[in-house]
Amino acid sequence: MPSDDSLPQQNLLAAVDLGSNSFHMVIAEEVGGDLRLLDRLREGVRLAEGLRPDGGLRSEVADRAIDCLQRFGQRLRSVPRERIRVIGTNTLRMLRDADDFLARIETALGVPAEIVAGREEARLIYLGVAHSLAVAPEERRLVVDIGGGSTEIIAGRGFSPGIRESLHFGCVRSTQEYFPDEKISRDAFAALQRRVRLALEPVLGEYRRFGWDQAVGSSGTIKAIARILQENGRGPRITAVGLRWLQEELLSLGSFRALSRLAGLKGDRVPVFPGGLAILSAVFDSLQLQEMRFSEGALREGAIYDLLGRIHHEDSRELSVRGLQERFHSQRERNAEVLEWAARILAATARDWELADLHQRWLRWAILTHDIGLDIAHSGFHKHGEYIWRNGDIAGFSQREQNLIATLVRLQRKKLPSGVQLQSFGIAAEDLPALQKLAIILRLAILLQRGAGELVTKPEVMVMGKTLQLQFADDWQRQAPLLRAELEQERDQLAPEFQLLF
Amino acid sequence: MPSDDSLPQQNLLAAVDLGSNSFHMVIAEEVGGDLRLLDRLREGVRLAEGLRPDGGLRSEVADRAIDCLQRFGQRLRSVPRERIRVIGTNTLRMLRDADDFLARIETALGVPAEIVAGREEARLIYLGVAHSLAVAPEERRLVVDIGGGSTEIIAGRGFSPGIRESLHFGCVRSTQEYFPDEKISRDAFAALQRRVRLALEPVLGEYRRFGWDQAVGSSGTIKAIARILQENGRGPRITAVGLRWLQEELLSLGSFRALSRLAGLKGDRVPVFPGGLAILSAVFDSLQLQEMRFSEGALREGAIYDLLGRIHHEDSRELSVRGLQERFHSQRERNAEVLEWAARILAATARDWELADLHQRWLRWAILTHDIGLDIAHSGFHKHGEYIWRNGDIAGFSQREQNLIATLVRLQRKKLPSGVQLQSFGIAAEDLPALQKLAIILRLAILLQRGAGELVTKPEVMVMGKTLQLQFADDWQRQAPLLRAELEQERDQLAPEFQLLF
Repeated sequence: MPSDDSLPQQNLLAAVDLGSNSFHMVIAEEVGGDLRLLDRLREGVRLAEGLRPDGGLRSEVADRAIDCLQRFGQRLRSVPRERIRVIGTNTLRMLRDADDFLARIETALGVPAEIVAGREEARLIYLGVAHSLAVAPEERRLVVDIGGGSTEIIAGRGFSPGIRESLHFGCVRSTQEYFPDEKISRDAFAALQRRVRLALEPVLGEYRRFGWDQAVGSSGTIKAIARILQENGRGPRITAVGLRWLQEELLSLGSFRALSRLAGLKGDRVPVFPGGLAILSAVFDSLQLQEMRFSEGALREGAIYDLLGRIHHEDSRELSVRGLQERFHSQRERNAEVLEWAARILAATARDWELADLHQRWLRWAILTHDIGLDIAHSGFHKHGEYIWRNGDIAGFSQREQNLIATLVRLQRKKLPSGVQLQSFGIAAEDLPALQKLAIILRLAILLQRGAGELVTKPEVMVMGKTLQLQFADDWQRQAPLLRAELEQERDQLAPEFQLLF
Repeated sequence: MPSDDSLPQQNLLAAVDLGSNSFHMVIAEEVGGDLRLLDRLREGVRLAEGLRPDGGLRSEVADRAIDCLQRFGQRLRSVPRERIRVIGTNTLRMLRDADDFLARIETALGVPAEIVAGREEARLIYLGVAHSLAVAPEERRLVVDIGGGSTEIIAGRGFSPGIRESLHFGCVRSTQEYFPDEKISRDAFAALQRRVRLALEPVLGEYRRFGWDQAVGSSGTIKAIARILQENGRGPRITAVGLRWLQEELLSLGSFRALSRLAGLKGDRVPVFPGGLAILSAVFDSLQLQEMRFSEGALREGAIYDLLGRIHHEDSRELSVRGLQERFHSQRERNAEVLEWAARILAATARDWELADLHQRWLRWAILTHDIGLDIAHSGFHKHGEYIWRNGDIAGFSQREQNLIATLVRLQRKKLPSGVQLQSFGIAAEDLPALQKLAIILRLAILLQRGAGELVTKPEVMVMGKTLQLQFADDWQRQAPLLRAELEQERDQLAPEFQLLF
C-alpha cells in the first residue's frame, strides 16, 4: 500500500520477474504511449536452489526471496497497483503447493504474483527482446533465453512470436546436476549438451522452416558469455568459434574455483555458469547458429509492454480469446447475445456482489468461449471447454486466470457446486465468492438468451444478498412458454446457497 | 465358430442390436453391392429393467438376454465372423462393469459386441432409416427413434446425418419412473412431457435452422403408435391430432390393465407404452411436427450398411479420421511419412507379434492423428490427443476402439508403461499384448521419420520375440548424427519388457 508521502504516479508501470536464478524489477514511465525505462533492479536470489525433491521450498531460500521482495516493494510504492505485474516462472511452477509462498510474496510487494506457463514466459521474453531491437516489422528473429530453471527459444517476426518452446532445464539446476563436485569435465559438458540436443531434436524442423534473419540472446547467462568474449578480445558478437574457445578455457581451468581467473566473469555467476555455457553451445550446434547478439530486453520488459497493451485496449488476452473462438468454431453471434444478458444482470448485481472489473473480464471471456468444447464432442461439452482452458496454450493468461475461466466454463451446466465443493477445482479461497456469483450470472445469461429472446419486454433484475429476482412483464409465460420450467430447474440447481425468484 | 455342416456364406452380413427394450438381429445378403434383407428377429428382452441402481445387472435379466443371444447365435453360424456387427447401446453404456456380461455375450454369439456412444447410435439409426426411404440425395429428413433407454433425434440430408442428439430417456425406464403403479394419470403424462421438452429446449434452434422435408420415426414405440392409429381409422401417418386423440384414450382407460382394450396394441408393448407415447407427443410439441411416417429401418440396418461401407472401402471411420486431421490441423504430409516407417516395421513384425488387420488399422488411425493434441497446447500434446480420442464424438468408432486409439496416442511419448500399468488405461486384458507392441511401432516410426529421413539406406528391421533390431548401413551416424542418441533414449524407455538393438 502506498504511504502518504509517496502517492502513486499514474504514468508509471512496473514488472517483477521472480526468476529461478535472479529476481528482476523494472519501473518504466509512459511517455506519449511509449515507455521509458526508469529503473532496473536485479538480485541473485537463486530460488531454484531452494526447490526440494518433494516439491517444497527450503525456508532459508524462501526467506532470502522475501527479503529481496521487501526491498523491491519499497520501490513499488510509487506505482499504481493495477499497473504492476509480478510474474513467477519455472521454480514457482514446480512448487508442490505455492499458495503460502504466493501469499508472502503479495504481502512483501503489495500486489499478487501470477505464475505463467513456459510458453507464456517465452511469449513475454520475445516481446521484451523485440522491443529492444530496431523496429522492423518483417524481420524474423530467433530469441534464446537461458533462465535459471528453463530455457526459452522463440522464432518470431517483428513483435509477433511464432514458434515458442520452453525446455525444462536452465543454468541453475543443470550446473548442480552435471557439475555437482564443482569440477568441469569434458564428459559432463558433453552429457549436458547431448541432453539439450535431444530435447531440441523433435522441434528443429519447425524452427528451420520458420527461419530467422538474426539470432538474439537475452538472460544473465548470455550476457555473461558476451562480456567474457568481449573482454578476451573475441566480441562483440557471440560466435560459434568464440563459444568453442570459451568451452576449452573452462575445461582447461577445470574447476569452479579456478573460474575466477576468467576475465569478465563475475563471482556470483560462477555457480551457474558451466551449465549455462553448455546449454548455449548445444543450442548453437542444434540450430547451426554462427552468431548471436545480446539484448537487455527480457521477460520483465515483455511483461511491461504486455501490460501497456492491456491498458491501451490491445489486450493480448482478447486476441487469444478471439483465436479460441475461431479455432474451435464458436457461435459468435449467439455468444454476443449471451454477453448482453450478462451485462443486464451485472448492472444490477456488480456492486452488491462486489464484482470488480477483473471479475467481469473473467465472465466475459468465459461467455465468449463457453461453447468451444462442442468441437470435441456434444456430450459433456462443458467439460471439454474446461479441459481446453485448463490445458490450452492461451497467450496472455496466467495459470490462475486460465483455471478460473476453465472452472466458469465447466459450471455453465448441471448442478452448481457449493462454495466448499468448488475448492476441489483448484480455485484460491479468495476467488471463490466471486467465482460462484459469476457462475450464476453465466448460467442465467445462457438460459435467458435461449428462452427469453421472444419476450417483448425484458425482465428487470434485482438483487438482495444471495437472492436474485427477475421481474417479468405480465404475459411472459405466453410469449416464452418453456422459460418458467427452465427457471424452476435452475432455481433447484442453485439451491441451497442462492435464491432465484421470478 | 461355424460348425462343419453350416459353412459361412461369404455374401451374408448380419447385425445384432442389443437394445434396452428389445434385441434385434438382421441377416442380409449382398447382391451386386446392394443388400437384400433375408431375416429379421426380435425378442423383447427388456434389458433396461435389469439395470440396478448401483450399475449392476440383475442376474435373471442377464440370463434372459443370454438365452436370447444363444438362439441368435445359432442363426449367425452361416455368416462370416468379420461380416457381423453386434452393437450395445444405452443399458450397456450404463453398466458399471460390462466386461463379464460382454464375455458372456461373445460366447453366446461367437463374435464380440461393441458398445457405441449415443451419438454414434444416432448416426447408425439415421443410416438405417435413410436406406429404407426413397433415394433422394437432397431430401432433408428428421428421424426420431424412441429406444428402451434413450431417444435419438437426427436431422440429416440424403444419407448423411447432420445434427444428432441422444437423450437420456427411453420408453422402458420413463414408463417405470413416471407410471410406477401402472396407473395412467394426466399429471404423470404432463410431467414426463415437460421433462422431454426441457431436454430438447437447448437444441431446438439448431434443428429448426437445419429444417426438414419429412419426419420419419423408427423404433418399436413409434411402430406401435402407427399401428394403433391405423387400426382406429386415424392412419396411415402419425399426426399431431392423432397423438392427442391417443393420449386421451390412454387417460380415459386409466391403467395398464385396461390398455388391452386398445385396438392394435400388443400385449408385450403395454409395460413400456405410456412412457413412449408421452415422449413422442412431447417431441411433436417441441419440434412443432404435424405428421410423421414410420420406417422399418433402424439401428441394425444402419449397422449393416455401415459394415458394407467398411467392406467396400467407404469406411466411415476413415472419413472421421480425415475430419479430425482437418479440424485439429494435423501435419498430414509428415504423418504419411510416419505411416511409411510404420509399414516397414510392420512388415517385419506383424506375423511374429500377431498383429492382425484390425490392430494395424488402430495403429494407422493413431499415426494419422498423433499430433491433433497440438491444437490445444504444445506442452503435453500427447495427453490432449488422448483426451480428444477418449471424449470425442467420432463417427463410426465404438467406445473400445476410441479408447484403444486414445491410449496409443498417449503412449507416443515418455516412458512406455509395462503391461500391468497399461491396465489403468481401461484397456481389456485381451487387447493389452497387441497394444503394447503397436505403441512400440508407433514410437519408433515417429522417431525414424524425424531422425532417419536423411539416411541414404533405410535400416533393415528384424524381430525375435520381444527384441526388435534395426540394422543400419555403415555410415548412418554420420548421415543422421543425433539418431543414435535418440535410439538409446528410446531403448531405455522400452525397458525392461522389450529390447531394442541397433
